[in-house]
Amino acid sequence: MPLFKTLMVIGPGLIGSSILRRARSTGQLAERLIVMDKEPAVLKRIEELGLADSVTTEPAMAEEADCVVVSVPVRAIENVVRSLSPHLRPGTIITDVASVRGELDSSILSLLPHGVEYVPSHPMAGTEFSGPDAGFAELFENRWALLIPTPETAPWACGKMQNFWEFCGARVKFIKADEHDRICAMVSHLPHLLAFTICDTADNLSSEMRSAVLDYAASGFRDFTRIAASDPVMWRDIFTANRDVLLETLDRFLRDVQSMADAIRDGDDDAITEKIKRGRSIRRTLIQNKQA
Amino acid sequence: MPLFKTLMVIGPGLIGSSILRRARSTGQLAERLIVMDKEPAVLKRIEELGLADSVTTEPAMAEEADCVVVSVPVRAIENVVRSLSPHLRPGTIITDVASVRGELDSSILSLLPHGVEYVPSHPMAGTEFSGPDAGFAELFENRWALLIPTPETAPWACGKMQNFWEFCGARVKFIKADEHDRICAMVSHLPHLLAFTICDTADNLSSEMRSAVLDYAASGFRDFTRIAASDPVMWRDIFTANRDVLLETLDRFLRDVQSMADAIRDGDDDAITEKIKRGRSIRRTLIQNKQA
Repeated sequence: MPLFKTLMVIGPGLIGSSILRRARSTGQLAERLIVMDKEPAVLKRIEELGLADSVTTEPAMAEEADCVVVSVPVRAIENVVRSLSPHLRPGTIITDVASVRGELDSSILSLLPHGVEYVPSHPMAGTEFSGPDAGFAELFENRWALLIPTPETAPWACGKMQNFWEFCGARVKFIKADEHDRICAMVSHLPHLLAFTICDTADNLSSEMRSAVLDYAASGFRDFTRIAASDPVMWRDIFTANRDVLLETLDRFLRDVQSMADAIRDGDDDAITEKIKRGRSIRRTLIQNKQA
Repeated sequence: MPLFKTLMVIGPGLIGSSILRRARSTGQLAERLIVMDKEPAVLKRIEELGLADSVTTEPAMAEEADCVVVSVPVRAIENVVRSLSPHLRPGTIITDVASVRGELDSSILSLLPHGVEYVPSHPMAGTEFSGPDAGFAELFENRWALLIPTPETAPWACGKMQNFWEFCGARVKFIKADEHDRICAMVSHLPHLLAFTICDTADNLSSEMRSAVLDYAASGFRDFTRIAASDPVMWRDIFTANRDVLLETLDRFLRDVQSMADAIRDGDDDAITEKIKRGRSIRRTLIQNKQA
């Protein structure tokens, strides 16, 4: 028997449509799939792909769901939940897939009727592509899904969402909200900020230099541009929602850049190789951990 | 008939041993292969791999070569050429594979006897691995090989080295030294500096955070660590040899980072998405250019 009777996915982009594909291909997640989006064109595409039993632009349909996954950009979550809230039945689980917790969780809790269980989650999976065509059923396989229950989340709801992500193929970990935001700032938000910026720097070059950079991108630059291809609104929301932690992490990084620049300026060979070697040791650990 | 009678490769690491493998597998580059290294263990490995007809630690053997490829870290090139110089016959071509031209080319020219042709080159190919076991015959295929002739390089020698890199599978472009160094600072040296530094920043975290970062590296951070696994001495040499251009490129980048940080601090949505979109457009052009 599937985990849920009716699963509603709101915002069937890369993450949302991957959940739908997983649900279709395994049958383990839900008997019935409802997809909501504000864009009729997206819903049409979802129907063409055969990824929903019903599609809607209306939040009222949430009353038929016993699990609602809100997979929209971070700063859009609160408004979506506000519109759903009058329609949610007690015993329904609602989750999001946001990359930043910040103030979000307490805002959402204050919007939900009694008896609705909020289980914030963050599947750490993604590609640089977006939209309903970008998803695939194996996206979450062997990736982490972090569960960040609020003080009010019922244990049974945590258990259900643990099953949910495990059925998606992910490995589940429970984690505290502030720890979550600090880790993500380091492993994801800062790398994306740097990747976007180095592309910006290249774009600001003279047109002659810019075209040369594009010709010769294979030598390191290219690795940065892959993650820089990600969705702008999604990342704008992440950067602003995790502002304080991200800027603090950026400051640490800039101090380290300054120290590397000083070592290069002073020709301090030992300091330079020391810093480079630390990078190598991190890489080696990743390979041992099978994360690379 | 092969391009050269006797090819000597000095420093058979990733680049050097890939040339040797290419020479062995196609037979187009040279009739005979001499390999020189200061480390007997490296030479032993080259013999085990069957990549040389003769191995030596002695520069005197250069008198038997009509082409010498010096593939050692940038700052070691000058000393190697100084030791070779008394043994080079007129008509011999000498090349290096350095990622920075800077002051190198004029220093080398001043060391070479009359009639020896110096054709600086830079094959823009590599992986994060190093040493004689890291090379492979296809490393240069469809990659750029930049030729940076000095004002004194004879056209016939440029033609020979163009053939050399084309036989290695590369696409050849002629380029001026200062332009070369500016392009490489942007597409290769700066990305490597940032990649080493973000690993350094992660390494400086509390051990608890550090282990979490390693656990969750898949979300962007991992892409940076790949290039951070490269050889420390090679990169120390590149950073210091291209110091002025690299630090200037870094300054541009840091101004752009500051501007992104300001936009995030001020919650300036338009500015943030504008910067992110520029990154995407660069990526799109790369894909069109088949560089990504």
